[in-house]
Amino acid sequence: MIRIGLDIGGTGIQIGAVNEENRIIAQSSIPTKTDIPFSDQVDQMTACIRGLLNPDLNPELSIENVTSIGAGVPGLANSEGVVINCTNLGWSYTPLREEFQKRIDKPFFVDNDANVAALAESVAGVSAGTSSSVFITLGTGIGSGIIMDGKIWKGHHGIGGELGHMIMELDGIPCSCGNRGCLEQYCSATALIRMAREQVAVHPDSMILALADGNPQKINAKMVFDAKREGDPIAEKLFRRYVFNLGQMIAGIVNLLDPEIIVLGGGVSKAGSLLLDAVREAYLPSVIFNDQPQPRIEIASLSAEAGIIGAAMLS
Amino acid sequence: MIRIGLDIGGTGIQIGAVNEENRIIAQSSIPTKTDIPFSDQVDQMTACIRGLLNPDLNPELSIENVTSIGAGVPGLANSEGVVINCTNLGWSYTPLREEFQKRIDKPFFVDNDANVAALAESVAGVSAGTSSSVFITLGTGIGSGIIMDGKIWKGHHGIGGELGHMIMELDGIPCSCGNRGCLEQYCSATALIRMAREQVAVHPDSMILALADGNPQKINAKMVFDAKREGDPIAEKLFRRYVFNLGQMIAGIVNLLDPEIIVLGGGVSKAGSLLLDAVREAYLPSVIFNDQPQPRIEIASLSAEAGIIGAAMLS
Repeated sequence: MIRIGLDIGGTGIQIGAVNEENRIIAQSSIPTKTDIPFSDQVDQMTACIRGLLNPDLNPELSIENVTSIGAGVPGLANSEGVVINCTNLGWSYTPLREEFQKRIDKPFFVDNDANVAALAESVAGVSAGTSSSVFITLGTGIGSGIIMDGKIWKGHHGIGGELGHMIMELDGIPCSCGNRGCLEQYCSATALIRMAREQVAVHPDSMILALADGNPQKINAKMVFDAKREGDPIAEKLFRRYVFNLGQMIAGIVNLLDPEIIVLGGGVSKAGSLLLDAVREAYLPSVIFNDQPQPRIEIASLSAEAGIIGAAMLS
Repeated sequence: MIRIGLDIGGTGIQIGAVNEENRIIAQSSIPTKTDIPFSDQVDQMTACIRGLLNPDLNPELSIENVTSIGAGVPGLANSEGVVINCTNLGWSYTPLREEFQKRIDKPFFVDNDANVAALAESVAGVSAGTSSSVFITLGTGIGSGIIMDGKIWKGHHGIGGELGHMIMELDGIPCSCGNRGCLEQYCSATALIRMAREQVAVHPDSMILALADGNPQKINAKMVFDAKREGDPIAEKLFRRYVFNLGQMIAGIVNLLDPEIIVLGGGVSKAGSLLLDAVREAYLPSVIFNDQPQPRIEIASLSAEAGIIGAAMLS
């Protein structure tokens, strides 16, 4: 038996067939097109799935073997398979399940991409075998997914799991969501880049600016970590501040939810042990019961395939 | 069948027998004594329970009918029935279950008092019939309990459920826990009183100071609400700021957990609809998906009996 997972992103749609060992046994992709009608979008996705199901290549790859189809979207979806809101694709209250099932009559599920990645890690990644986890992507924004008792917890009304919009500073930095002081403004890659630009404006001799060819607009998170590794004092200061912010975020998760494991993913997590070691040290003093056993904190182990695997696991 | 609940507080221990309709059918209390050995403390509690079990008064009140005994403590307890930490009673890694069961051989459970109150509300109070809830006591500090799928969620290591120590302001007001900027410092009754003292220091003509007989040390939360009802502009300003803080707290809970219901308890919640209406209005704009169905927000309906009823429900 196999399950189909679709990782629907702003530029491309990754589609894969996943076996019972949670491994991708066939994979394909199509570009995301927003300039065609929704029904044509679904036609292209289902055509790609049918193309993938070629029993001549692998006898497992037959439509009869497909038990379910799942999709991860960069937006909000409800339990009826309706995508409430997905700006990148121009979808609003879009009946994805209904349209899919007109074409392929299989159980169909859709969820937010961060929830999907959290599920993938908790079944096939670094948090495999745990019953509760909080997965956090440190990227352009902050994505997050909560797994409780092995299942995605997205709230009673389906609007939860948005760690990035917890308050980290009353009346703080304006956020794209309309509120001020959201955690995303202090813990995302974008936040680190903003802080770096502020610093190089007053410390133009920082190695960070050299790595960015003298152009503050070119600064990315990796440059800050690279300059820190080289001993640049401004990068060191930025690193400490950013790690402090992440530590406050993680301490809050421990104090409130105390999951079995906290998983860091997204672009910033590529800093690996440099970041992980510092964060593990930084968060602990801010936990109330810090003399008790604590959640593990780890870097996500799945990469691009998490989106397909997690989507295939939706149920 | 009946269950016994003990509400162990810093000054007194309330003990009750609870029937299958979750009603207290017999109740007694003893003072909390910290100057006697632990075994004597347990002797007194079990003696009080035995005194309560008088079949002559009510045939249900027999030791044979007792299915379990539960206790709520103002501290941290683990699933083995050990109270890890309970400053008010001078307990540290205290084997409450073990000592209890030496005297009365029944299943015994112990949990934090805020978790116990959350459970009581979710079974017999305003959140009865809901499957997920977050209960918050706005008092000297912030207590909280999370109910997920009808059960207390205290985390994988038993150290979660402490909403009051989520970060609300990076590098903010120092907290008794050792961290800075904890939510408790902005949303508790103590926080409101601190803000009121700051305001009357510069606005001594405020009605709040008059209600406190001119003594800032006498100010309590009720005086702020009373002065606001009378139109005092300083009280109005304080009320708005405090409600803003509560709104940010609630928006964070909705964004992260989206429970079916959020229940406000503790001393501040006695302000009733004055507070509730303002909070309901204040939090919504700060929720990301605020055009979707939202959690109910309500005032706790159980009062002192919540401690006994919730403790009796522990399992």
